[in-house]
Amino acid sequence: MGSIHPPWAHIVSQKRAIRDQQIAPYLVDDKELRVPRVHQVDHRTRLEQEPQVQKITDIDDIACLVKGLEAGEFSAEQVIQAYIKRAVVAHQLTNCLTEVVFDEALQQAKKLDEEFSSTHKLKGPLHGVPITLKDQFDVKGVDTTLGYVGRSFKPASQDAALVKILKDMGAIVVAKTNLCQSIMWGETENPLWGLTTNPRNPAFTSGGSTGGEGSLLALHGSIVGFGTDIGGSVRIPQSFVGLYGFKPSSSRFPYEGVPVSTEGQEHVPSSVGPMARDLASISYITKLIANARPCDLDPRCTPLPWNETAFQEIQNRPMVIGLILDDGMVKVHPPITRALQELSTALTAQGHEVVIWDIADHAGCIEIMDLFYTVDGGEDIRRDMAVAGEPYLPHVEALVNRGQAISVYEYWQLNRRKRAAQKKYLDKWNAVRSPSGKPVDVLLSPAMPHTSIPHRKFRWVGYTKIWNFLDYPALAFPVDQVRANLDKLPAEPYVPRNPFDEWNWNLYDVDQVDGYPVNLQIIGKKLEEEKVLGAATTIEGIWRSHVQGKV
Amino acid sequence: MGSIHPPWAHIVSQKRAIRDQQIAPYLVDDKELRVPRVHQVDHRTRLEQEPQVQKITDIDDIACLVKGLEAGEFSAEQVIQAYIKRAVVAHQLTNCLTEVVFDEALQQAKKLDEEFSSTHKLKGPLHGVPITLKDQFDVKGVDTTLGYVGRSFKPASQDAALVKILKDMGAIVVAKTNLCQSIMWGETENPLWGLTTNPRNPAFTSGGSTGGEGSLLALHGSIVGFGTDIGGSVRIPQSFVGLYGFKPSSSRFPYEGVPVSTEGQEHVPSSVGPMARDLASISYITKLIANARPCDLDPRCTPLPWNETAFQEIQNRPMVIGLILDDGMVKVHPPITRALQELSTALTAQGHEVVIWDIADHAGCIEIMDLFYTVDGGEDIRRDMAVAGEPYLPHVEALVNRGQAISVYEYWQLNRRKRAAQKKYLDKWNAVRSPSGKPVDVLLSPAMPHTSIPHRKFRWVGYTKIWNFLDYPALAFPVDQVRANLDKLPAEPYVPRNPFDEWNWNLYDVDQVDGYPVNLQIIGKKLEEEKVLGAATTIEGIWRSHVQGKV
Repeated sequence: MGSIHPPWAHIVSQKRAIRDQQIAPYLVDDKELRVPRVHQVDHRTRLEQEPQVQKITDIDDIACLVKGLEAGEFSAEQVIQAYIKRAVVAHQLTNCLTEVVFDEALQQAKKLDEEFSSTHKLKGPLHGVPITLKDQFDVKGVDTTLGYVGRSFKPASQDAALVKILKDMGAIVVAKTNLCQSIMWGETENPLWGLTTNPRNPAFTSGGSTGGEGSLLALHGSIVGFGTDIGGSVRIPQSFVGLYGFKPSSSRFPYEGVPVSTEGQEHVPSSVGPMARDLASISYITKLIANARPCDLDPRCTPLPWNETAFQEIQNRPMVIGLILDDGMVKVHPPITRALQELSTALTAQGHEVVIWDIADHAGCIEIMDLFYTVDGGEDIRRDMAVAGEPYLPHVEALVNRGQAISVYEYWQLNRRKRAAQKKYLDKWNAVRSPSGKPVDVLLSPAMPHTSIPHRKFRWVGYTKIWNFLDYPALAFPVDQVRANLDKLPAEPYVPRNPFDEWNWNLYDVDQVDGYPVNLQIIGKKLEEEKVLGAATTIEGIWRSHVQGKV
Repeated sequence: MGSIHPPWAHIVSQKRAIRDQQIAPYLVDDKELRVPRVHQVDHRTRLEQEPQVQKITDIDDIACLVKGLEAGEFSAEQVIQAYIKRAVVAHQLTNCLTEVVFDEALQQAKKLDEEFSSTHKLKGPLHGVPITLKDQFDVKGVDTTLGYVGRSFKPASQDAALVKILKDMGAIVVAKTNLCQSIMWGETENPLWGLTTNPRNPAFTSGGSTGGEGSLLALHGSIVGFGTDIGGSVRIPQSFVGLYGFKPSSSRFPYEGVPVSTEGQEHVPSSVGPMARDLASISYITKLIANARPCDLDPRCTPLPWNETAFQEIQNRPMVIGLILDDGMVKVHPPITRALQELSTALTAQGHEVVIWDIADHAGCIEIMDLFYTVDGGEDIRRDMAVAGEPYLPHVEALVNRGQAISVYEYWQLNRRKRAAQKKYLDKWNAVRSPSGKPVDVLLSPAMPHTSIPHRKFRWVGYTKIWNFLDYPALAFPVDQVRANLDKLPAEPYVPRNPFDEWNWNLYDVDQVDGYPVNLQIIGKKLEEEKVLGAATTIEGIWRSHVQGKV
């Protein structure tokens, strides 16, 4: 920042000071003793002296937390207190928080407790549930910075549609979390809030762009969070911490009141998606939001209530799963291939059919999507950056300088290419039949070509962003971990297919990432969120039985 | 065209000659005796010597036609023959046909008859039903001209998604119909196919852009047709001939295989919509298409099967109807106001609630929509026109020269304004309550500010295009006719609010349009097609009882 502080740096100091003042009462003084742990990373934020805090924050499943509240095992205030405490430790370790609203959260919790003690009725299915949000969702009275310095001190005048829905069900917003400059990147850093780190290793990225949320969840500083995903921003950070991130089709959840970079573009819409510590919570909250008529709050939303039949039906019959082992561009690291093959074998053993998925058209989809990134010549991001004048991160600078703006007519021609590629993909899906003659239900794919990586090494999002391009729902979920004894590089050297492939292959160091989580993805056709979550429920069950069988 | 024929004129001659050769066997030689009729305009195409033709083509309801086929009252070949015959007379009178496929249609009909005679089973719910299409839907082996000379002699390689769906149900494509140059205009004329006239009056427009379809349907040359609607192109022509035109939300029916001007734009999507001679047919075919999983053929389609519950529910309770009498910009002609008020009174008398709808934000929506028309500086249309070099119609020339292209970044800002206006409109709708405290179900509005008008007098589509801007389903349906004794201008001269208003008011000549159809519109919220059609069923029933009560 230099010795003479420029005006943007002054704003940064002010913003951080305000946050730090609010978190000060909850800081722990043994931060240095809370060393990185590969397994049970959440133990880093344990508060051993406070068993109630531990008890509350060990509950992964939202529905269980709500049951505990209903049964009077703890109060909403205790829940919010517990999460505030662990969130602050998580922040001390990873720098994940941006805007915090602890006082309001505690007040709301007290109010809920008072109402509950007189009515004995929950406010709703999220009564007392703490919620955290990527710093992109409008919360009344709080800045929505998007990580841009120039958006500081401009508090939102009302809650985002999603926040309204959640609050109406009794949820309590506790804090907002860090993201990356420009939002469109798979790491989490910006000059306003700084760098968020991986909870397992401070030298490693949390992933992004919703990386603050991922680190916070992994350290049990939140039970459910929301991010946005236009290329993997919900799924990537959850993959790097071994948790669950769901990107629904873009019209399923409301985006109203969620400012975003390149706002107004409609070529590849960003999705709002939930992030949680277990699968049941993802299904629980997806169902709640789908049934809350988001179409009444956001004209972009499809009036599609939760389809319980579709969710159950797929859990009660043999499935057909399209298997993606490799996208043909960037080969995934050994532990990911191993997990995919092992899971595939386990699924087949349980009577499900697995067919190898044709990925020949993935490169074409990625090419069109990459062309979209530069259609405005970077003007939108440039304008946001110019407001306060903070420095560009190298990848953002590269993005805005990558290409010249094109004309609106040329832009439409790109949309035509997009639509043709979407049609071709849909036709392909519909044409495939399993050996027994049945159509494919869902796809199983890597989430990323690698597990978490060191900071500023990020490059390839082809495994996640293609589902944004197609607007298909995609769930990132954990299956295994890197196992140094099993996941060595093959003896024969790999000949990379392109510079991305080479970069990725060179990143792999099995000893460095031993024990790190391995996530995969389940993908469904557009607006078939229920089918994806139903399939995931079955697949996770089979995987767990398989793992137990091995023990 | 001048004495030396330019190349484009040569193409025109060839195209028309090919069509004329196919229709030649069916031409009638008493065209001059088939004089315009204000009432029962379809009598102009009667074939008195062929009672079977009359019997078949007098059936307005698709389901009745199919029942007749199932009962063996007539064969598919007879149905197709009958419609070909009346379609050709309709064409002789109004110049409504472009591409004709009579031979293929008759062959398909014969094949259906053969199958039916051996299986005694219908091919599907549209077995033997003749279909006509705006010359914008791909039909394999046939040109899709869009009225552009330069698209001649480039036959489609496959059927549009909608055509596939219809054919799979047993429907038979008979012909394609005329539209306007650039598609975006409310009349029907282009240098390739010429001018289509109103069936009641050759000096009057058929409306547009799907005007060939409207004239053909009015003269019983078709039982059901399909158009596209980005500003009223399905609803306007049906309003000018007193029939039914339905514009669903854009993602309900498949647009795949339907080339369009400004293709690739996604700011205000065009909708595919059915046009028919009665309301039951509109509901019948909408249900069929919604249940045919168009989302499997077009990635833009929402997987939303027909909601019979929503269709029935609204028919079995008092409704709340928002009433638009005037859009605040262009005041409607006296017969339209009269019809709206009379219908409104009849609805109230039957226990429905009518609330006056606030139109304060309509001007803002129209302004944004008008800005979209010029975002590419007219380049898309210019390129299509340049292929063959035919002359511009004055309104198309004005459109392409109206404004400079804007940048992609500016275009996105316009999209943001659009979205904010859509959100504001939705919030308004959700906030309104009837006197008894209930929310508004549907809106009732003029379809156009005038009934049919002389050629080249068209200017204002604010009453239809706002529902494209909002992507709300809208049905144009007939209620009454102009009645010279009731619909005189008020004694006090009207002071117009703006040049459009002045133009419209000056168009009104009650004696000239005495007996011409008066249509209205019913509008629902996005993707509530079933609610609109259910409400229309009730409203039409009440109106018919009301009219019978007066007689």
